[in-house]
Amino acid sequence: MELSRHEIREAYNLISPYVRRTPVIDVEPGTLGGTAVLLKLELMQVGGSFKARGAFTNLLTRPVPATGVAAASGGNHGVAVAYAANRLGIPAKIFVPTVSSPAKIARIRELGADLVVTGDRYADAFSASQLWAATSGALSVHAYDQRETILGQATLGLELGEQATAGLDTVLVPVGGGGLIAGVASHFTTDVTVIGVEPHGAPTLFSAREAGQIVDAATGSIAADALAPRQVGELVFPITQKYVADVVLVSDDDIRTAQRALWHALRLVTEPAAAVGVAALLAGAYRPGRGERVGVVISGTNTDKLPD
Amino acid sequence: MELSRHEIREAYNLISPYVRRTPVIDVEPGTLGGTAVLLKLELMQVGGSFKARGAFTNLLTRPVPATGVAAASGGNHGVAVAYAANRLGIPAKIFVPTVSSPAKIARIRELGADLVVTGDRYADAFSASQLWAATSGALSVHAYDQRETILGQATLGLELGEQATAGLDTVLVPVGGGGLIAGVASHFTTDVTVIGVEPHGAPTLFSAREAGQIVDAATGSIAADALAPRQVGELVFPITQKYVADVVLVSDDDIRTAQRALWHALRLVTEPAAAVGVAALLAGAYRPGRGERVGVVISGTNTDKLPD
Repeated sequence: MELSRHEIREAYNLISPYVRRTPVIDVEPGTLGGTAVLLKLELMQVGGSFKARGAFTNLLTRPVPATGVAAASGGNHGVAVAYAANRLGIPAKIFVPTVSSPAKIARIRELGADLVVTGDRYADAFSASQLWAATSGALSVHAYDQRETILGQATLGLELGEQATAGLDTVLVPVGGGGLIAGVASHFTTDVTVIGVEPHGAPTLFSAREAGQIVDAATGSIAADALAPRQVGELVFPITQKYVADVVLVSDDDIRTAQRALWHALRLVTEPAAAVGVAALLAGAYRPGRGERVGVVISGTNTDKLPD
Repeated sequence: MELSRHEIREAYNLISPYVRRTPVIDVEPGTLGGTAVLLKLELMQVGGSFKARGAFTNLLTRPVPATGVAAASGGNHGVAVAYAANRLGIPAKIFVPTVSSPAKIARIRELGADLVVTGDRYADAFSASQLWAATSGALSVHAYDQRETILGQATLGLELGEQATAGLDTVLVPVGGGGLIAGVASHFTTDVTVIGVEPHGAPTLFSAREAGQIVDAATGSIAADALAPRQVGELVFPITQKYVADVVLVSDDDIRTAQRALWHALRLVTEPAAAVGVAALLAGAYRPGRGERVGVVISGTNTDKLPD
């Protein structure tokens, strides 16, 4: 599967009435590591994360039956599908594992979706949603391994490219199932160096790259509710093999430090998964060269806690 | 006193290496009131508020003696002067009243300033700072009633004007001593309708406009640590009489509702004073016309609490 910039632009035009053009901010050197960084503040997206882009792209381009839409999610994708369905007047049934954060579960309920909390892991919620889609005929919207989902997330890359008026050399992107990084890399291809960041405890893409194929990975991290499917997606992996330059790992402590730094310097409240890019800079897992123009995607904020 | 756009541009060029170009975000209708609004996210400024603009303008354009700089502040101005002095290697002594928020006091201390907590009101801290400046020879930087302070805050108007690519009809600005609104109005003059917003419990500019002259006003509001000097500034008042179209009032409950709405919709953590513009929209204290393009300045975030 390949996505052209033309397709990405068309998807962007289609979803633009429904999603926010989230801002960027240039942060001075010495604040989030030694170099200046451009933060893409996707945590201000509708539904609290980038997932709204993929959700709207699915619901606006695929036929939706009267039984509506089904999704399985560690949380943010569920919030996004519930938000998009609510906005478009479509019934939604969302399956989430018990590990999901209370803040995410509360948001899904508020948006009027039918919520099913089931199983310990994302995979359990996914099986339940597939079963329901098969029996009810509902449209199943995959959290990452779906062409339209990746196409929607790609619009974040397009938008960031437009906003980075001084240019970008590198962009750091959080990786869970890989929908976001596959989308962003589809837009930037090799024009910008795309680096994935994962927790040590949930190295789905890192492990797949080491093995040269999709393999099971551990799912233990404070970011597990958003970044810990067992495997990277089948559509995702070939795109990342082609366009993602490297994947670096950060510890849970690195992530907590990054959350605190974002709160202290910018009063940004981020969920653990959204802070991994800054964690990579602060911990030295990724070390920019002199004058390198680095962008970092702050991908979501569905938490109800401030950093310690 | 008048400030030309040319002077404002020169100040902007001077302080730009030290302050952040804070982002704007377009928020869809139905989220923060019935109409779309453009939020100016000045809460992401260095030091956590717009006050950094005025602080740097003072320290970069006025002669600073070896004894350094003195400031009195309800909090944000103190943080800003401490930040600017730290950045420029200048000693700073900051006087704050006991009403100041613990978050602001902690930030001033972290920035290495000599902190004096004195008196119940801003006026008490101001007297103490004036006495010290007179005896020590330190440069006194007024929180609002100083030409260079207003000039610095005016750069927020310039920046917002550049960022509002679809144009602006109206901008809502929080008012305490009036430095921010005087600056913003100096930039926009009558090209954009400038509306001040104050708490019912701290109506400094509202009262002065009613009386046709500067008068004492009440100082009781949840936003009192930032918006409750007893009087609007002497340099401020004539500028606002010329260029500010109206001043509207909001209740403490309106402010709390606005803080919750900003948290819920955008995960923005705002201090009470920064939420008054959104409060005016949600409570109907200001009612935009159909198609009116409204900007709202979210002025600061030096709080350590989430909304209830």
